[in-house]
Amino acid sequence: MAFQDYFPVFNRLSAAQQQRVLSSLTERHVKKGTILHNASTNCAGLLLIRSGQLRAYILSDEGREITIYRLFDRDMCLFSASCIMRSIQFEVTIEAEKDTDLWDIPAQVYQEIMAESAVVANYTNELMASRFSEVMWLMEQVMWKSLDKRVASFLLEESAIEGTRELKITHETIANHLGTHREVITRMLRYFQSEGMVKLSRGMVTLTDEARLKGLQRS
Amino acid sequence: MAFQDYFPVFNRLSAAQQQRVLSSLTERHVKKGTILHNASTNCAGLLLIRSGQLRAYILSDEGREITIYRLFDRDMCLFSASCIMRSIQFEVTIEAEKDTDLWDIPAQVYQEIMAESAVVANYTNELMASRFSEVMWLMEQVMWKSLDKRVASFLLEESAIEGTRELKITHETIANHLGTHREVITRMLRYFQSEGMVKLSRGMVTLTDEARLKGLQRS
Repeated sequence: MAFQDYFPVFNRLSAAQQQRVLSSLTERHVKKGTILHNASTNCAGLLLIRSGQLRAYILSDEGREITIYRLFDRDMCLFSASCIMRSIQFEVTIEAEKDTDLWDIPAQVYQEIMAESAVVANYTNELMASRFSEVMWLMEQVMWKSLDKRVASFLLEESAIEGTRELKITHETIANHLGTHREVITRMLRYFQSEGMVKLSRGMVTLTDEARLKGLQRS
Repeated sequence: MAFQDYFPVFNRLSAAQQQRVLSSLTERHVKKGTILHNASTNCAGLLLIRSGQLRAYILSDEGREITIYRLFDRDMCLFSASCIMRSIQFEVTIEAEKDTDLWDIPAQVYQEIMAESAVVANYTNELMASRFSEVMWLMEQVMWKSLDKRVASFLLEESAIEGTRELKITHETIANHLGTHREVITRMLRYFQSEGMVKLSRGMVTLTDEARLKGLQRS
């Protein structure tokens, strides 16, 4: 599978535009934990994921984190190239959550094609609307949902992504996804354990009663 | 001043597109308190504000509100026409916060022109990025800022919008802007009053020490 198969509007570009994209893009292989973009880096390119997983998060002044969305195979990361639109006035950090293979399209090339192609501009609109929808979902969670429901949701989501009920994850990492403190997560997981919903061991959370976690998530 | 002067990319449309917009738009005059769009209404059009003020907010299942952004003269409201993009998967309510004069462009007309015009598609991208930036700012406030700072910010913003230190506003309304309960706001305002930062009277909050409110907001 080549870049052309991963970029949905490729066939709707002109031959010249196709050539411009193909000749400028680079393939990158990044290790888990690599920071691909943050407030202090220059405008990176648009990142199209071949395989792997990225996480976008925001940081408080005190270094607390909250995950705002995640990107998987075939997803395109727009905000690593936030310079392509002057109205993007916020900073997210993009981190590889797994070893990831991706294509990097230079921001300037993408911006030039977007300026002349209604197809690419509308595709970009849809991308942004998807990310916006995820952030609005998160806003609703943060505003109206108690933390026990958010932790249950996170564990179930993580289990679905990894395809296992045995999650290799620290309490610190869960706290960084959910924008809270490690101590708060530890207390919550111990409560979940006392209720038989999870089993805790070093660096590991095992889901032992998914039905109840789902019930809690929905309640 | 006519519609043409308020819609920034009007001159970059083709003559046929200009004609299509002008012949389909309607002028509306809505009273303060009018709900222009919510989850149960059909896709309204894109609203371009001639003069007035709109508020976009989300609602919890229990009826709690939080303001996600406000729109003023010359602003265009995109999410009243959320059907124009299938990736917009969230619902906001749009309410007139003041008597408002606006133009309403039918969603279908806008969508057709956006599909063929890179200029309009890129303009729409910038609009969405602006709203996205406001929501990200709000997310940071909600996640990392204590409520006293958010109340101070809100009072100062409101005072700047209204051009007066005497705000005709109820505690309930402030709670609905900030996504919290009236009782919480009442307690906070009484604390502000005891510290000499505001003076409370029936249906009114008067800012009596803006410098300290600004200091609190920044702290």
